[in-house]
Amino acid sequence: MKQVPLKSILAEIYPLHRTLASDGTDEALEIIGGYMPDESGYTIETYTPGKPVWTWRVPERYVVHEAYLEIADGERVLDFSENSLHLVSYSLPIDSTLSWDELEPHLFFNEKRPEAIPWEFKYYERSWGFCLPKNTFDQLPRDQKYRAVIRSEFIADPKRGFRVGTGLIHPDDGPNPSVGEIIIASHICHPMQANDDAAGVVTAIGLAQRLIEEPLRKGSMNVRFLFCPETIGSIAYLAHHEDLIPHMKGGIFLEMTGNENTLVLQHSRQDTHLIDRVAGYVLGQRDERYREGEFAQVVANDERVINGPGVNVPCISLSRWPYDEYHTSDDNLSIISEEMLQDAAKIGEDIIRIFASNYIPKRNFRGPVFLSGHDLWVDWREDWDLNRAIEKIMMRFEGQQSIFDISEELGLDYWATYNYVEKFREKGLIERLPIPSESSAE
Amino acid sequence: MKQVPLKSILAEIYPLHRTLASDGTDEALEIIGGYMPDESGYTIETYTPGKPVWTWRVPERYVVHEAYLEIADGERVLDFSENSLHLVSYSLPIDSTLSWDELEPHLFFNEKRPEAIPWEFKYYERSWGFCLPKNTFDQLPRDQKYRAVIRSEFIADPKRGFRVGTGLIHPDDGPNPSVGEIIIASHICHPMQANDDAAGVVTAIGLAQRLIEEPLRKGSMNVRFLFCPETIGSIAYLAHHEDLIPHMKGGIFLEMTGNENTLVLQHSRQDTHLIDRVAGYVLGQRDERYREGEFAQVVANDERVINGPGVNVPCISLSRWPYDEYHTSDDNLSIISEEMLQDAAKIGEDIIRIFASNYIPKRNFRGPVFLSGHDLWVDWREDWDLNRAIEKIMMRFEGQQSIFDISEELGLDYWATYNYVEKFREKGLIERLPIPSESSAE
Amino acid sequence: MKQVPLKSILAEIYPLHRTLASDGTDEALEIIGGYMPDESGYTIETYTPGKPVWTWRVPERYVVHEAYLEIADGERVLDFSENSLHLVSYSLPIDSTLSWDELEPHLFFNEKRPEAIPWEFKYYERSWGFCLPKNTFDQLPRDQKYRAVIRSEFIADPKRGFRVGTGLIHPDDGPNPSVGEIIIASHICHPMQANDDAAGVVTAIGLAQRLIEEPLRKGSMNVRFLFCPETIGSIAYLAHHEDLIPHMKGGIFLEMTGNENTLVLQHSRQDTHLIDRVAGYVLGQRDERYREGEFAQVVANDERVINGPGVNVPCISLSRWPYDEYHTSDDNLSIISEEMLQDAAKIGEDIIRIFASNYIPKRNFRGPVFLSGHDLWVDWREDWDLNRAIEKIMMRFEGQQSIFDISEELGLDYWATYNYVEKFREKGLIERLPIPSESSAE
Repeated sequence: MKQVPLKSILAEIYPLHRTLASDGTDEALEIIGGYMPDESGYTIETYTPGKPVWTWRVPERYVVHEAYLEIADGERVLDFSENSLHLVSYSLPIDSTLSWDELEPHLFFNEKRPEAIPWEFKYYERSWGFCLPKNTFDQLPRDQKYRAVIRSEFIADPKRGFRVGTGLIHPDDGPNPSVGEIIIASHICHPMQANDDAAGVVTAIGLAQRLIEEPLRKGSMNVRFLFCPETIGSIAYLAHHEDLIPHMKGGIFLEMTGNENTLVLQHSRQDTHLIDRVAGYVLGQRDERYREGEFAQVVANDERVINGPGVNVPCISLSRWPYDEYHTSDDNLSIISEEMLQDAAKIGEDIIRIFASNYIPKRNFRGPVFLSGHDLWVDWREDWDLNRAIEKIMMRFEGQQSIFDISEELGLDYWATYNYVEKFREKGLIERLPIPSESSAE
Repeated sequence: MKQVPLKSILAEIYPLHRTLASDGTDEALEIIGGYMPDESGYTIETYTPGKPVWTWRVPERYVVHEAYLEIADGERVLDFSENSLHLVSYSLPIDSTLSWDELEPHLFFNEKRPEAIPWEFKYYERSWGFCLPKNTFDQLPRDQKYRAVIRSEFIADPKRGFRVGTGLIHPDDGPNPSVGEIIIASHICHPMQANDDAAGVVTAIGLAQRLIEEPLRKGSMNVRFLFCPETIGSIAYLAHHEDLIPHMKGGIFLEMTGNENTLVLQHSRQDTHLIDRVAGYVLGQRDERYREGEFAQVVANDERVINGPGVNVPCISLSRWPYDEYHTSDDNLSIISEEMLQDAAKIGEDIIRIFASNYIPKRNFRGPVFLSGHDLWVDWREDWDLNRAIEKIMMRFEGQQSIFDISEELGLDYWATYNYVEKFREKGLIERLPIPSESSAE
Repeated sequence: MKQVPLKSILAEIYPLHRTLASDGTDEALEIIGGYMPDESGYTIETYTPGKPVWTWRVPERYVVHEAYLEIADGERVLDFSENSLHLVSYSLPIDSTLSWDELEPHLFFNEKRPEAIPWEFKYYERSWGFCLPKNTFDQLPRDQKYRAVIRSEFIADPKRGFRVGTGLIHPDDGPNPSVGEIIIASHICHPMQANDDAAGVVTAIGLAQRLIEEPLRKGSMNVRFLFCPETIGSIAYLAHHEDLIPHMKGGIFLEMTGNENTLVLQHSRQDTHLIDRVAGYVLGQRDERYREGEFAQVVANDERVINGPGVNVPCISLSRWPYDEYHTSDDNLSIISEEMLQDAAKIGEDIIRIFASNYIPKRNFRGPVFLSGHDLWVDWREDWDLNRAIEKIMMRFEGQQSIFDISEELGLDYWATYNYVEKFREKGLIERLPIPSESSAE
C-alpha cells in the first residue's frame, strides 16, 4: 500500500482508455491494486464475454488499433491516438469515404462547450462515430469527401474478458460473518475523464487506507470495495456473487468527489434507512453545507443496481454533482482538488465507522437495572445529557432499535451512546443483535 | 339482448307494483332478462319464505287483491288500483269502519310536496296504512266515518317465493377463476318510482351491454350483476351463495342515476380501497364536477350488506342523490334523463375496465432490466412521461403494488402504464398476481 | 374492613418510621390490613434479605436503637426518637467525636425551607448522616467538637425480612382468569411524611372499599393492590410472582393525592394505551381541570418497574405533584385534605370500572343484523346519539376494537355503548374477547 496524495493516483488513472472492457481499464485496475491496502486482499476478477448476467450479457472487450477522420485531401481532422474521447466508445469498425451528409450523423459535439471534445458511447447500439469540439466541427468543409477509419475489434476470448477489482477490509477482530458487510462502489470507466469517476475511485482508495490506519471497532461489519465499469460492472459482479447479497446491510456509491462544490447526499431507495440517517447525521455534525436528493434523482449510477430490484441493498451516493465539465474533455485534472477528495473520503469514513459498529442491543434483564450496583451510574457532573437519558436508554433495549436509532431518538451523540451501551454488554446485561438485512435473498 | 334507450326500459319497469316479493317484482325481473346480454346467462332465483338468511328471514310474497279508502257515504278517497303508492307496502289486511281519530294514524302524506303521494312501507311492523297527497288529506271531512279495505295476502308457498335476478359477464378469454370478480348491484323494489331505483337497474343493464360490445381485456375479473329488493335481497342472495364472497374483489352499487344532478361517489367502508381510488381517478379525468361522501353516509343501501360485517367486499355507490322527488309519486319518468343514465353507465364501465384489468406485477428478474436488449426502451419523443418513469416502474414490481397503485403513485395514465407493464409480462420478466380479496371468508 | 375518613387512616400511618424494611413499615402494613376489605384477602409477604431479585438484591432490615447528635459539652442537637427524619435512612452505625469540618459533610438541610427537616436516604451508598433545619444548622458552633451516635443494625434474618402487602378484588361473578387483572400500586415508605406516599396508600384503600360497596360488573378484570417500599418493593414482589405479569393488562400508580392541587395524569410508557385513554376520558368528563405528562417525566416511581423493561404492564400514575413541602418534615397532616384523597379515589374507581369491564366484541353474525327482529333497534327519541351510531357500532364487531375504542371513535358515552353492545352479547350475536396483554412473558 503506497500512500501518496489521492490526486496523484487520479493523475495515473485519468488518461487511460477506460471503457467497459479495454486495456486501459485493465491498467486502471492494476494501478488501484497498487494503492489498496494489502489487508484488503484486493483481487481482479475476469468474466466471460457473452455470458448471461441476470437480464444482461457480459460485454466483449473493445480494442482500438487506430481510428481517425481525414478530409479526402489528406488533412487529418482528429485521431484516437491523440485523445481517446475522439472515438465514440464501442464504435464498430469502418473504413469508408463519405460525403458530408453521410458523415454528419456520426459526428458529436457539445453546443455549450464549443472548445471541448464531448464523450459519447454506443455500447448497445451497434453504430460508430467521432467526437470533436464544436469549433472544429463548424470549420469543417461541407463540400469535401471524408475518410473515416476505425480499426476496432470486439474480443470474446474468456481469458481477455470483462474485469472488475474488489477488496475486503475487516474490523479489528477479524471477520464477523454474522454482522454482515457494507459495500463501497465506484466506477472505473469513462476514458480521459477525471471527476467522473476516477475521483470516486481514488476517494474509495483513500477511505480504505483510513480504515487500515485506524481499524474499525471489534464486532463491526466488514467493508467491501468494488471498482468496476458502470452498471454492467456491478451487475456482472453481483450476478457472479449472489451469495454475498443477503449479507450486505448497506452501500455507498462514490463519484464526482473531486470538483469544488458542496457534497450531495443522494438517498437510498428506502429513503430513510439507517444508512441515510447515519449519513445525514455525519454531514449534519459539520459546519459545511450539504445538499440532499432522492434515490437515483441526483445522478443515477450503480446504486440503481446495488439498491435495485432483486438486490435492494440500501445504497446512498455521495458526489459533488453538478459540474459544468461533465462528459467532456474539460473534465480533467485542472478541476480536481485534493482537499475535496480527502473531504469526501473523511465523510465516507465517518459514515462507515458508525454504520459498521451499530447493532441492536437486546436486554437479558427484567425491571429497571440496579445501576449503582452494576457501576452503570453516570454522574450528571460528568455527562449531563447522558445522565438525563439513562432511563430512556435502558427502556430501549427491546431488540427493536439499534444504538443509532436510540441516540437519534434521544438526541444524543452516537459514540457517547455506543460507549455507554457497550458497558451494559460487557456486564452481560444485553446482547448484540445484528442489523437486519433488507437485501433480497432469492 | 334488445338494445333500446335506457329510459324506455325504465318506462316498462317503472309502473309495476315492485315490493319485496310481489308479482310486479317478478315482472320487472323478467323485463330485465329481456335486455341483459345473452352472454351474461341471466337467471332468476327463488328463495323459500321464512327461511333464515343470516340474522334475517326470507319475506313472504305480498299479494294485494284490492285496497281502498272510502268515506262512509260511499265516496272513494283513494284506490290501490289507481296508484300502488296509495297502499303502505306490506300493510296487513283490514276491512273496518273507523272514525277520523281512529283512521288518522294510518294516513301518510308529505308536507313538502302537498300534491304528491308519498311512499311508505311497514315491512316488519305488522301494521297497515294509506298514502295520499297532503292536499287531499286536508280536505277530508273530520266528522265522518271511513271504511278502510285492504284485501292483502302474505304467501309462504316456496314456489312463489322471494326472487332476485343475476348474471355474469366474462372477459374476452373466458372466466379466470383465480382473479375473482366485481359485483354490480341495484335494487328493483320501490313501486311506481323511477329514479329510486329503476334508474340504477337500467344503468346496470346499459353497463352490461357495453361490456359485451367491447369485451374486457384478457385476464380481467368477471363482472357479476345482481338485481334484487333492497337489503333483504342482497342478504338473501349472498346467504345462498356464501362461496362466492371470497372471490369478490370489489363492488359498485348503482342507484338514482337518472335525475339531473352531478354524480356522487360514496366511498367503500375501507374508504381508500382500490375501488375508491379507481373511481376517483375515472371521475377526476373528466371535466364534469362530481361529489364524494363517506361509506353509508350519502345514501345507505345494499352496499351496507355487500361491504357489511362478515361480507366486507369493498363497495362504492354511484348516485345523483339528493333529489326533491324522493319517495313520492313525483319520482316518475318526467325527472329522468337518458343522458344522465348513459353517463352513469359510462362511468361504471370505465371504473370496471380499470378495476377488472388491474393486477400486481411480480418480477422474475434481478437488477435493473437491460431495457434496450429486451426492446423495452421508451423513447422520450414518443412518450415523455413514460420515458421519465421507466426506472421507477421497474423498481415497483415487488409484488406489493398493483399496476393502478404504480400509475397513481407516479402520476401516470393507467392504460399507458398497463400497456407498458404488459410488455414485461409478455417477455416473461414479470408474472401477474391477483388483487387480494378483503372480503370475509368464514 | 373498618370505614373511617381516609385522612384518619393516614394519621395512623404517617408518623411511623417507614423505610425499606423496618418495624415502622411492618406496622404500616398491619394498619393497612385493618382497612382493606376482607374480600380482598389481604396478605403480607416476607422476602429473604440478600436474595437476588432480577438485577437487584432484597435489602436488609434496618433497625435503629438510638441515634443522636450532641455538642461535645453535652447539649443534644437532634434525636431520632423525636423525629425519625433526623436520621439519614440506612445510615451506618457510628459513635465518634468529630470536629465541625469532619461532621459537616454528614449534615443535610433544605435551603428553601429553613425551618423544616429534610428527608435524605443512603440506601446503597454505605454512609451515614443527620438531617436538620437550616436554621438549626446555622446556629451550631463551628469551633466545638460533636459526638455523633447511631446505634443501627442491618438484619438479614429471613424471618424478619423485607415486606410487602397485597390484596385482590374480584368482580361480582368471581375471578375470570382469562380476562386478566389491573394492578393498583402505592408505596408505603418515606418516614414521617404524609403526602408522599401515605396519601397514595390511603387512596388505594378507599378505592378498594368502593369496589366492594359497588362490585365490578360481571366478567370484569380482577383488581390487584400492592403496598410496598418504592422501587425495590415492586421489583421484589414481581420477581417473586413472575407468573402474574402476563395477566396484568394495566396499572395505576397512586401517590401524593392529598395536597390541594389539580390531578396530573402521567401517561404510560405506551403513552396512548387503553389505560391512558380511559383515564383521559374519565378526567375529561369532569369540569375540574387536570394536567398531563409523559411517562416517568412528571414524578418517577414504581411505574418505572411495572411498566419497565421486561415487565411492560401499561401503567399510568395519578398524583397532585408538585407541592412545596416535598421530602421535608412539612409534608405532614396539615397539607392533607380528605376531599382531595376521596376525589383521587373516585377518579381511580371510575377508570377501573371502565378499564376492567371493557372487552373486544367479536361478531358471530354475517351481514347487517336484522335489528327490529332482534329487538336491537334504538329509537332516536330515546337516544339520538346511539340511534345515529347503530350502524357504525355494528360495523365494528370485527375483533379489532374494544368497546372503549368504539365509543371513543364514535364520540359516544362509554356506558351507553357498553350496555348496547351487551345486548348483542346476550343474544349470542357477539362474543367477548379479552383485552390483549402488552406485558412481557419471558
